[in-house]
Amino acid sequence: MAQRGTGMAADIAEQPEVYATLLEPAHAGAIAQVAKVIAERRPQHVVFTARGTSDHAALYAAYLTEIRLGLPAGLASPSAITVFGARPDLSHALVIGVSQSGGSPDLAEVLRVARESGALTLAVTNNPESVLAQTAELSVDVAAGHERAVAATKTYTAELMALLMLIEGVRAGDGVLPADEHAALAKLPELATRTLADSTASELAARYRFAARMVTTGRGYAYPSAREAALKLMETSYLPALAFSGADLLHGPLAMTDPDVPVLAMVGAGLGGQAMREVLARLDERRADVVAVGPEAVPGAKALLNVPAVDERYAPLLEILPLQQLALSLALARGEDPDAPRGLKKVTATL
Amino acid sequence: MAQRGTGMAADIAEQPEVYATLLEPAHAGAIAQVAKVIAERRPQHVVFTARGTSDHAALYAAYLTEIRLGLPAGLASPSAITVFGARPDLSHALVIGVSQSGGSPDLAEVLRVARESGALTLAVTNNPESVLAQTAELSVDVAAGHERAVAATKTYTAELMALLMLIEGVRAGDGVLPADEHAALAKLPELATRTLADSTASELAARYRFAARMVTTGRGYAYPSAREAALKLMETSYLPALAFSGADLLHGPLAMTDPDVPVLAMVGAGLGGQAMREVLARLDERRADVVAVGPEAVPGAKALLNVPAVDERYAPLLEILPLQQLALSLALARGEDPDAPRGLKKVTATL
Repeated sequence: MAQRGTGMAADIAEQPEVYATLLEPAHAGAIAQVAKVIAERRPQHVVFTARGTSDHAALYAAYLTEIRLGLPAGLASPSAITVFGARPDLSHALVIGVSQSGGSPDLAEVLRVARESGALTLAVTNNPESVLAQTAELSVDVAAGHERAVAATKTYTAELMALLMLIEGVRAGDGVLPADEHAALAKLPELATRTLADSTASELAARYRFAARMVTTGRGYAYPSAREAALKLMETSYLPALAFSGADLLHGPLAMTDPDVPVLAMVGAGLGGQAMREVLARLDERRADVVAVGPEAVPGAKALLNVPAVDERYAPLLEILPLQQLALSLALARGEDPDAPRGLKKVTATL
Repeated sequence: MAQRGTGMAADIAEQPEVYATLLEPAHAGAIAQVAKVIAERRPQHVVFTARGTSDHAALYAAYLTEIRLGLPAGLASPSAITVFGARPDLSHALVIGVSQSGGSPDLAEVLRVARESGALTLAVTNNPESVLAQTAELSVDVAAGHERAVAATKTYTAELMALLMLIEGVRAGDGVLPADEHAALAKLPELATRTLADSTASELAARYRFAARMVTTGRGYAYPSAREAALKLMETSYLPALAFSGADLLHGPLAMTDPDVPVLAMVGAGLGGQAMREVLARLDERRADVVAVGPEAVPGAKALLNVPAVDERYAPLLEILPLQQLALSLALARGEDPDAPRGLKKVTATL
């Protein structure tokens, strides 16, 4: 039997390579073709459907869709269709199912119903042979390779990267990334390698050995990072972790924070990071124990998980990396096996 | 100084009266007029924007919109517009802002941008003079009266009731509720009174006096109830409470549940309640401590918060009541003041 956590560690380490693979002509070209079809079909709005980790990739893509394409975007609850029999008219929509396995029957059912109602449908998955990919009209392979651990890491960031390339391709009109965008993305493998080489995250794990709960927070593109970090901590370390958008945190849950509730705050270099300043000030009033994730130290924060300063759209591809390392190290510190969390399977089939 | 919690207790007790008020001809007629305009304008999809408690009312309305109107519905992140400057084309959309105070500048900004882009805009608020109501083309007054406590209770259920009446009015076409629907809704004040008369919730609070965290879960229409219950527990009892749709719970967070993590599960009489059976079975495998909220005892559950069996669409108007009582009683048991939680104000202004 392999040592605990070696699978998750290997998955995490492969992420720079996954970014590089998606930028290779074969994969980038396939994504560009799908982007071109979407640009030509001109959907009026975009509906994402996903579960778990992939739901966080979908949330990231929803921000990109609204901000970069000027199209309304929303996340659909599969149960409205699969449990309650809703048949919404999706004839003006692009409906995108995101799933690493492509095996969850509820997402395939949503895409089937959407396609029947005239929607343009797209599957974004790590398994191009999956039922999700076969159900949708279009399909993007996120090409992350076999994922060893149950907790998704490289398939998450592969979904982020593929969705970013897709949406920027739609924005370009012909599906092809502009040269400056491609050049900026081409730096991500090296930046990811550098981020992963920092040992702060694994050192920090000891600090949370006896934490009973955790709060994660971020705004805009960084809110999905907060959500995904919370899920990793729950899955691997069995630590109840609550994720809030910075704005929502101020609408109630702030009352719960005190010096005994550790907070992980995404504080990037862009507009979302700036919008976190008010949140950080309010957390400081409550004497919360804040650790920042971003390119520079934050006044009042106990520590920094250092992530290179990049365009805000790219930050989610880097800022999740030390948080994955933190979840892995904390699980090991607690004597758990992050490769095979209790009660979970790799493919979760829900209706 | 008033005794702790008397404000929240009074707000909770008034909810049957709030339901009755909204069914009076003056209020029902005003809602019907707005519903008629929406039906005539035939939006192609509906976008909700809200924060905190009102976000849960919006989520409930999004399920109703998809299932009862067959229109795609989504919840928008205000920050895409207010922080990142997105200008999505909302010309085919109905955009609904939900807010008890109507005073949050980010929601008003979303409605302003939406209206400029040609959307039909609607404010649902407890303050018809608010900036939100003045910004939108249409406005619905939820008529809950002055709310004493910071933690929203009667304004939440008033929003649910007003949104239900509105959407069923749109479904009818002329805005007017069908006679059988009106007759069924007219029973809610009495059913709410009966639900509130049950003392189980306040007795159960002692059981959670030393709980360090809690999980709430439900599916479909009952998922917003789980979300709102978690927020009330965080706001008033400072108890980290994690809300999951039953399906999402199986996609990862299930690993975190064990006999030491109390679970509150919405198990109603309809399709959503039936879909919870698989979730309950998995929680049972993990030996989770489950208390059910619904019309009948659930095998394996430690206790039942009894709610009358009603049409699944109406259950959220009743099942939240014992959960509000639980939050109030638990806050008092912990020596906190639920009327004025630390760190919070009644009107939260976020950008």
